[in-house]
Amino acid sequence: MVATYDTKTDYKVIGNSPIRHDGVDKVTGRAIYGGDVKAPGLIWGDVLRSPHAHARIKSIDTSAAEAMDGVFAVLTHGDFPQTDDKTIDAGEGTVNLRRGQSNVMADKKVHYKGHVVAAVAAVDRNTAQVAAQAIKVEYEVLPAISDVDAAMAEGAPQILDGLVGDHLGESVENTNVARVFRHEFGNVDDAFANSDLVIERTVSMSMVHQGYIEPHNATAIWGQDDNLTVWSSTQGSFGVRSQVAGLLHHPESKIKVNYVEIGGGFGGKTVVYLAPIAALLSRKAGGRPVKLVMDRSSVFEATGPAPGGKIRMKIGVNKDGKIQAADTDLMLEAGGFPGSAVGAAAICVFACYNLPVSRITGYDVLVNKPKSAAYRAPGSPQASFAIETVIDEICDELGFDKIQFRLDNAAHEGTRRGDGVQFIRVGLEECLVAAKESDHWNSPLGDAPAGKKRGRGIASAYWMNGGGKSTCDLMLQDDGTVMLNEGSADIGGTRTSIAMQAAEVLGIPVEDFHPSIPDTESIGFTGVTGGSRTTYTTGLAAYNAAQKLVVELKSRVADLWETEASNVEFADGVFSANGDSIGIQELAGKLDPTGGPATATASVNLAEAGNAYGVQICDLEVDLETGKTDVVRYTAIQDVGKAVHPQYAEGQIQGGVVQGLGWALNEEYFITDDGAMANRSFLDYRMPTSLDMPMIDTIMVEVPNPLHPYGVRGIGEVPICPPLSAAAQAIKEAVGKPFYELPVKPGRILEAQND
Amino acid sequence: MVATYDTKTDYKVIGNSPIRHDGVDKVTGRAIYGGDVKAPGLIWGDVLRSPHAHARIKSIDTSAAEAMDGVFAVLTHGDFPQTDDKTIDAGEGTVNLRRGQSNVMADKKVHYKGHVVAAVAAVDRNTAQVAAQAIKVEYEVLPAISDVDAAMAEGAPQILDGLVGDHLGESVENTNVARVFRHEFGNVDDAFANSDLVIERTVSMSMVHQGYIEPHNATAIWGQDDNLTVWSSTQGSFGVRSQVAGLLHHPESKIKVNYVEIGGGFGGKTVVYLAPIAALLSRKAGGRPVKLVMDRSSVFEATGPAPGGKIRMKIGVNKDGKIQAADTDLMLEAGGFPGSAVGAAAICVFACYNLPVSRITGYDVLVNKPKSAAYRAPGSPQASFAIETVIDEICDELGFDKIQFRLDNAAHEGTRRGDGVQFIRVGLEECLVAAKESDHWNSPLGDAPAGKKRGRGIASAYWMNGGGKSTCDLMLQDDGTVMLNEGSADIGGTRTSIAMQAAEVLGIPVEDFHPSIPDTESIGFTGVTGGSRTTYTTGLAAYNAAQKLVVELKSRVADLWETEASNVEFADGVFSANGDSIGIQELAGKLDPTGGPATATASVNLAEAGNAYGVQICDLEVDLETGKTDVVRYTAIQDVGKAVHPQYAEGQIQGGVVQGLGWALNEEYFITDDGAMANRSFLDYRMPTSLDMPMIDTIMVEVPNPLHPYGVRGIGEVPICPPLSAAAQAIKEAVGKPFYELPVKPGRILEAQND
Repeated sequence: MVATYDTKTDYKVIGNSPIRHDGVDKVTGRAIYGGDVKAPGLIWGDVLRSPHAHARIKSIDTSAAEAMDGVFAVLTHGDFPQTDDKTIDAGEGTVNLRRGQSNVMADKKVHYKGHVVAAVAAVDRNTAQVAAQAIKVEYEVLPAISDVDAAMAEGAPQILDGLVGDHLGESVENTNVARVFRHEFGNVDDAFANSDLVIERTVSMSMVHQGYIEPHNATAIWGQDDNLTVWSSTQGSFGVRSQVAGLLHHPESKIKVNYVEIGGGFGGKTVVYLAPIAALLSRKAGGRPVKLVMDRSSVFEATGPAPGGKIRMKIGVNKDGKIQAADTDLMLEAGGFPGSAVGAAAICVFACYNLPVSRITGYDVLVNKPKSAAYRAPGSPQASFAIETVIDEICDELGFDKIQFRLDNAAHEGTRRGDGVQFIRVGLEECLVAAKESDHWNSPLGDAPAGKKRGRGIASAYWMNGGGKSTCDLMLQDDGTVMLNEGSADIGGTRTSIAMQAAEVLGIPVEDFHPSIPDTESIGFTGVTGGSRTTYTTGLAAYNAAQKLVVELKSRVADLWETEASNVEFADGVFSANGDSIGIQELAGKLDPTGGPATATASVNLAEAGNAYGVQICDLEVDLETGKTDVVRYTAIQDVGKAVHPQYAEGQIQGGVVQGLGWALNEEYFITDDGAMANRSFLDYRMPTSLDMPMIDTIMVEVPNPLHPYGVRGIGEVPICPPLSAAAQAIKEAVGKPFYELPVKPGRILEAQND
Repeated sequence: MVATYDTKTDYKVIGNSPIRHDGVDKVTGRAIYGGDVKAPGLIWGDVLRSPHAHARIKSIDTSAAEAMDGVFAVLTHGDFPQTDDKTIDAGEGTVNLRRGQSNVMADKKVHYKGHVVAAVAAVDRNTAQVAAQAIKVEYEVLPAISDVDAAMAEGAPQILDGLVGDHLGESVENTNVARVFRHEFGNVDDAFANSDLVIERTVSMSMVHQGYIEPHNATAIWGQDDNLTVWSSTQGSFGVRSQVAGLLHHPESKIKVNYVEIGGGFGGKTVVYLAPIAALLSRKAGGRPVKLVMDRSSVFEATGPAPGGKIRMKIGVNKDGKIQAADTDLMLEAGGFPGSAVGAAAICVFACYNLPVSRITGYDVLVNKPKSAAYRAPGSPQASFAIETVIDEICDELGFDKIQFRLDNAAHEGTRRGDGVQFIRVGLEECLVAAKESDHWNSPLGDAPAGKKRGRGIASAYWMNGGGKSTCDLMLQDDGTVMLNEGSADIGGTRTSIAMQAAEVLGIPVEDFHPSIPDTESIGFTGVTGGSRTTYTTGLAAYNAAQKLVVELKSRVADLWETEASNVEFADGVFSANGDSIGIQELAGKLDPTGGPATATASVNLAEAGNAYGVQICDLEVDLETGKTDVVRYTAIQDVGKAVHPQYAEGQIQGGVVQGLGWALNEEYFITDDGAMANRSFLDYRMPTSLDMPMIDTIMVEVPNPLHPYGVRGIGEVPICPPLSAAAQAIKEAVGKPFYELPVKPGRILEAQND
């Protein structure tokens, strides 16, 4: 059942940019993050991590740690309940419970450097650290596999004991490829044979980290009635609840996850690392509250970055500018356990184009790196880099206008996506037209200073956006204000973007809303803030709750005026009947004789979410002597459906672009021969800073999403995708050499010049 | 609009006594009380209290405190916003905002010893204490007025500057009597003249304290956006919100009160003392979290005990055993500011009797003692002591059976209460019949050991119970459990008694409910836990929410089975339609395709609450040498409407009896000549302990309350009332002398023997 709406067009609240409700709390330090959590009798946990990227654990001796003064509990994998290969939804992606346990704490092998081997809880943080280091582990060190080529090479050592790969339905033993799958429509080989030009390239990209400022943390109290309370920085409290329940074989309803603010996640805070450890340590420590906070190196080495990998891309085109066929092999790094974003990459890779014939083959490949997780449009940036690199070469080769070519081949309503799904109303064409008409596209590149060269790149990309389950509750107060409760973690201002949608219905200023995010016992199930689902899905729950509140209030008004509820009209915040009228905020103070407080609750479970498209233009300057790149002008065009809060929408787009540029130009997991990440600090892991970036201009195109009453589409994911190719093509234009490997760091540029 | 119900009679959940959901948390120390609250950057507050019971403040010099290292803020009355005499509801009783401010922090006068004069916030608790003591106050000491006689005496110094008394509608200056009011029906003087016997007595009783174990505490954070967060041990978070808002002129919606567990309240935790101080200190201290915790002496000296006072009672009766008329003057100690429980005393005083003619005159009298507050059936114990003492003498004088006489004059449906309200269905007669048939009443008193004498007393009493506003939310979980949110502080197991009422509707085991109490931003307005309103009122909200959830689930079932919701039946936890059926807990896991989580919310505002009656029998032994009394057998009979959780209902009754016996036999504010409380510690303030008490037997009579679908009546208040007279009459029977002054402590018994 998919509801569709006639989009509302005259807005009072939607489309404004009010100040976020949690803003002052966050800038004055009053907001409570996981690191701030205290509880009476709190003790500290710490973990011992593997120094090897790939090794067999021969023995663990915890006796010295256990004997230390101030140590309350020591934990190894054997403390987890035995479990099998059941898979559960973790919000963005799934968690296989048995492997999930082994990722949280290594079983018989370590799969990456930094893999947790044991944990301790002790009276203070220092004692816990010292005790963790006192645990003795004997390893048999194995060769580290750092990329998909090595992983897929004949005779490569198998990383995951007992893994049986599913290769196009066939069970394969002794492999590092957990899964091979295919989406195929039409005869690709015939289509290539009939094409005027076929270009085939293989590109690769590095694993990169989301780089959220706040490290992972967790505090847990395991009560003597087995009720477990958890605080943890997360994109979704219910996701923590599900995963901890699954990993520890504990009933979901006996786990309460308290909301704490989150200092960035970008997909990386959808998977639990410390929460199950804190919980088991607390249980072993007699119910004492146990807290763990990761250091930055561990965040890099042992949480969930975006997969690097390799993509083979082959496209056939005719001289009339029509693509005939496309074929791709997507090989993404799952990391130390199965489960990369290759499934999503396959959905996204061809989604910008209306392809008569296509074949997508996906490979989920284990390597001795941390288990990858979601990162903003997981899988799509890699896919976009691959296809847009080839599209750019086709246009160069045949002299096509790079926008007109995309327009001539653009996906639109009715187009079959690479995985077979047919599009409803989408806005790619509108984005391309906006790009074509933009000041940026119509302005000259400008001259570079001496010793530098400039280039311009353009790329498009797609993300399907997320729906799923969300709940919103509204409580009208006597003074006409509204308490709004929702279950979505607020990462990018969603308290406000959700409240605005209820405010629009009720005709109450959004400043009079007090949005808050209760614990998992005080709001209906709500999925993670991820997949660009929150403003769309939880917003729709807020819209529905507001509609229900209006119904409730109509019956209250009818009580007060001694008429039938069906006689009462509501418009622009005013109830009226039989010539009488009353504003909703005035009414709020008069409800006592009509049955007390007016409250409303609504839940949704949305199977579809609409789709997001972005087109971006990058002007970039290359220093020929050093290979340093500077983005000098950047425009991101995106179909936002309807920008609920244009400032935040713009911020999401700008933030995504900057992260994409980091991936394109500098960021990488620099892996040493023994499989270690050499650059595991913010000093060495080169993320863009505000000083590196020009203002990112945005053009928001509004093609209403028919699945939402205000036409809202998710916006947070897609902007990270185009920069990878847009920047690379700009560098190609500047230096006259193509780049098939990310990041296009100064060293590579210099190398290419010297070729 | 008062809804009435046909009472359900076949119960699956109601009437059982499951283990309370918060039990393990509370016995293992995991439950979070106000004293446990921590926040990043927390600093401590302390107050300076008046050493005088009555004095004019000539000057306050805070300079030394302000100059101290580690002091962040110093507060005096001048820091409160100027306000006028607006009165707001504080849950049980009202708060006059101007006087409330002066009670929280003295303005130009101190009205009782321990009255707060100034406050400080400092880096730690010790520094705060030292700094508070460094504040220099110059006083002009005035004579202390310790009882209503002194307060009402000609020429008595006026305690409250500018007080204009309302004496039967007349404005009176220079008085300590804030209010005189009257309820009068018929001609009392004529009726007395026509009575065969008229007895008039004046009784008195001491101020007593609720004696909750947990002292008052408050932590507050005043954000730089003026959003205020408060934690405070309270019977009602919304009451704290309203009062802090009123006292500080701050919008209610900008105040969030977090729920913390409460270690006893009994009415005394309905008024704020520390929360406004913590809030203002936090504001002055730049938004740092400020915490204050009272010591025990201050709890006794400066919170809200029950009023002592004096009651004149005159009753006329005929030889046929029918009361002809009753007339009373109720003079209760308001304490240092107006507002005793005399209004409630007037409602209760004659409520056990069907009086043709009656007159009640109430006096609200200021004395130099702490401002009185609610304490279990506020005003009713004092009133019950007065009338039951005279009833007992009438029965003695005319040889009436003490139960039969009460039955012959008992209030019943249709009886006019002393204030004019007509009773709906009440259960006094049933209680009296149960008393008459009880084993206790039909057993001989038994012989006392040598040197001791025994006596038996009987008394009845009334409490009107409370209704008002409550909200309950339900969230059905995938695993068939239910998260239940409610706004009522859980003092006596109401998480469970409320969940049971939803469980009864839904057919889900109450053990599968997870009741919790969110902050004021996450639940609809809910009044204080007090007045015996919670299981009745919030329980009804839970019942309504469960009914709404059933309606919601019927439509989900209809979706799943592709039928109309109107075809779906629900009974005993099972949905059925067209021959199919599914249990509600199984259904819970199948809701995803029907629109996601199923949630429901319901609010009530109940104008009436039904009524509570109790009759109690006390056997007591007096040591003639020491005057020490020992209760040897005690039976409490009470109409509970329907005992939702019989064990807790019994516990409420037993607890009330023990507190009433303390008031009757030992507890008092022992006031020195200069107005100080001499016995301000638990060592010296003689509350009964478990070693002092026999098992209190209970007989629960169930006369369904027509205002509740399960017939529930509030039960927590009325049991404290009868012990005052029942114990006193038992002592009278033992030693042959009447007692008109409470407590009937050993000294008074010895004195009476020597008279």
